[in-house]
Amino acid sequence: MEFKELKKLEEAQRILMEKFSEKNFDNEKVLLQNAIGRLLAEDVIAKIDVPAFDRAAVDGFALKAHETFSASPYNPAIFKLKGIIDAGSEIKEIYDGECYEISTGAPIPRGADAVVMIEDCEVEGEIVKVKKPVAKFANISLKGEDIKKGEVVLEKGKLLKPWHIGVLASIGEKEVLVKKRPKIGIFSTGNELINYYEEIKIGKTIDSTRPMIIELLKDLGCEVIDRGIIRDDYNEILNELKILSKNSDMIITIGGTSVGKRDLLPKIIEENFSILFHGLAIKPGKPTSAGIIEDKLIIMLPGYPVAALIGFESLVIPLLYKWTGKEIIEKKKIKAILSRRVPTTPGIRHFLRVKIRKVDDKFLADPIAITGSGLLSSIAKADGIVVIEENCEGLEEGEEVEVEMIRWFYEKNFS
Amino acid sequence: MEFKELKKLEEAQRILMEKFSEKNFDNEKVLLQNAIGRLLAEDVIAKIDVPAFDRAAVDGFALKAHETFSASPYNPAIFKLKGIIDAGSEIKEIYDGECYEISTGAPIPRGADAVVMIEDCEVEGEIVKVKKPVAKFANISLKGEDIKKGEVVLEKGKLLKPWHIGVLASIGEKEVLVKKRPKIGIFSTGNELINYYEEIKIGKTIDSTRPMIIELLKDLGCEVIDRGIIRDDYNEILNELKILSKNSDMIITIGGTSVGKRDLLPKIIEENFSILFHGLAIKPGKPTSAGIIEDKLIIMLPGYPVAALIGFESLVIPLLYKWTGKEIIEKKKIKAILSRRVPTTPGIRHFLRVKIRKVDDKFLADPIAITGSGLLSSIAKADGIVVIEENCEGLEEGEEVEVEMIRWFYEKNFS
Repeated sequence: MEFKELKKLEEAQRILMEKFSEKNFDNEKVLLQNAIGRLLAEDVIAKIDVPAFDRAAVDGFALKAHETFSASPYNPAIFKLKGIIDAGSEIKEIYDGECYEISTGAPIPRGADAVVMIEDCEVEGEIVKVKKPVAKFANISLKGEDIKKGEVVLEKGKLLKPWHIGVLASIGEKEVLVKKRPKIGIFSTGNELINYYEEIKIGKTIDSTRPMIIELLKDLGCEVIDRGIIRDDYNEILNELKILSKNSDMIITIGGTSVGKRDLLPKIIEENFSILFHGLAIKPGKPTSAGIIEDKLIIMLPGYPVAALIGFESLVIPLLYKWTGKEIIEKKKIKAILSRRVPTTPGIRHFLRVKIRKVDDKFLADPIAITGSGLLSSIAKADGIVVIEENCEGLEEGEEVEVEMIRWFYEKNFS
Repeated sequence: MEFKELKKLEEAQRILMEKFSEKNFDNEKVLLQNAIGRLLAEDVIAKIDVPAFDRAAVDGFALKAHETFSASPYNPAIFKLKGIIDAGSEIKEIYDGECYEISTGAPIPRGADAVVMIEDCEVEGEIVKVKKPVAKFANISLKGEDIKKGEVVLEKGKLLKPWHIGVLASIGEKEVLVKKRPKIGIFSTGNELINYYEEIKIGKTIDSTRPMIIELLKDLGCEVIDRGIIRDDYNEILNELKILSKNSDMIITIGGTSVGKRDLLPKIIEENFSILFHGLAIKPGKPTSAGIIEDKLIIMLPGYPVAALIGFESLVIPLLYKWTGKEIIEKKKIKAILSRRVPTTPGIRHFLRVKIRKVDDKFLADPIAITGSGLLSSIAKADGIVVIEENCEGLEEGEEVEVEMIRWFYEKNFS
């Protein structure tokens, strides 16, 4: 098997977005304390007013506003103090000429329609002298002022953030209806692979790509169905794919997607299901491929960790951001001078890992590990990525480049 | 009790950073699958080489490079094919004039020092004809090429990201030593408060601030010790503070920090422990205060959700970013025209919530809820925040302002 035609990255992204971005997920009820980061599946309508009752916005005296209209320091309005209303009290009542001392947050007594601040009053035993007129509703938080009963508080499709949890709590919502999380089935293939928690054997290689991709998926809010390492066997892989296609929203495989004898995945997809493309015009990450099993998308990532990471960033992340409603955080970019020439193949988008040095007032970008997509340490050592477009034949020494300090690459502070 | 002097925000931030940013946390061992987002507590040294053995980087034939040096299409070098080495096989051996067919990732046989690609060979039964010379070590990933045994792979203090998990997996690390997570003790005070999951009673107000702050703390990687709602009682609060100061790294209280009768917190701190400041020159958020209990920081947030959020963003987040090693994500900013005049009090930093409209090619910022720090819906409705500096007397209609589309505020896409 060979790569017949490498799919251009933008074309591949367009195909996947067109076919899979509008995927429908089922709903589920979750407790409010588990709702953070989830997508609201219905409009939330307030079942109560917030505040639920007229309440004092300051500490002061609750009374009838019109009885203060002619009050002045020389001619204060006189009220009989009936008692104290604390926050959390039941609702009291006043009649003409009466007032209650009231705390912030406490319910305004029936009959009262304003709160006078303490500094505008003089208290003498049971008598309160108000030295200033107060307007109707002054210093009162009115019932429903923040949220009105029957109002749509949060709209369907909203990604729930901490302050949404606050809003939902304020109207007494104990559960919310949210979209189910994308279920992603994943396995690696390769007879040489072992898990990092297994005994190390000569001739065997630890599968480091799968744990990395699993963490990325969890970070994006997915439920991961991890099926471990599958042997390079046509029927075993086929069987695994059938199981996963029934139980997940997307399948991600790692390894076995290039053009060698043991690269069974594209062959299996082509012969049993439907292949979207085999090979992507990016480097590293060329063997990245995609297909459809029943109606489920399968993304085949290369086994080499850096190639897999670039393939994942390029194809999976845009889709999962769409599915989970996450905002795309703009990548921080800096301008830097390339410290040496980098030849590239036209028609392929290259992702060049670079280390950044500051020399005088300028940033210098040193290319690292231009070949060797297997070198995971090349990410550990990289500060950023320079994207070299398809129509480019390489970059010259001394050329100014834009370096993307991407999420998993950006750690240092160059200020 | 009254606010004696409102502390300027920058001064408050400086004090907290000076006293508390270098806090020492204990270490703990965690399984690799639970290590994401944690801070490495020690240098990790590779106990194995990666690759662990010389392995084929391509599919081809493993042989002795010097035996191909005079090879050409007309005069190919002839090798005896001894068999196939698959990935995951044990290490084989070859002698002069011999070769093995070998798969990518498979161990190079002893005696061989290069792999010739399939396309440069012709196979006739047991005979392989090599038509091109191959250099020593060509197409071999050498033992230790990615990571060398004994090498420091990740340094102490590193915040573990998905690809670090990959690196650690690749060297077979099953557990890692990380810093313990900050433990934050939290309670609300207020006789009027009930929890959102309790029965709603007239005169009672649902505590919506605490669930919001808890989600913020969890999002920042803290362990939260939630002590619920405490009554406005001097001894009950004092007792709670003593318990939490023994069991947490920082205490956050919500409510009871202003200047009314029921605002017991600053009084309790002043009389029993040590107060750093009572009142912050910000609006909303003025009652935000800080103190020290034993050697633990206590941040007293106002009860009103928006005021609490601004206080939390201003004082707690910078410290927790330091403690948890998280990068500060730069806030997205846009320029907008203020649609109406906003008077402010000099000496106070105002956080003005605005809604953004696009009119022709310009953004218009409509101020919302300039007063009313209680209006949680004012956040739900806001698109961003305009920070008005202390030395300013307000903003004029038509003035150009910078709007921070801050983390919990930014949801729409204005492209």
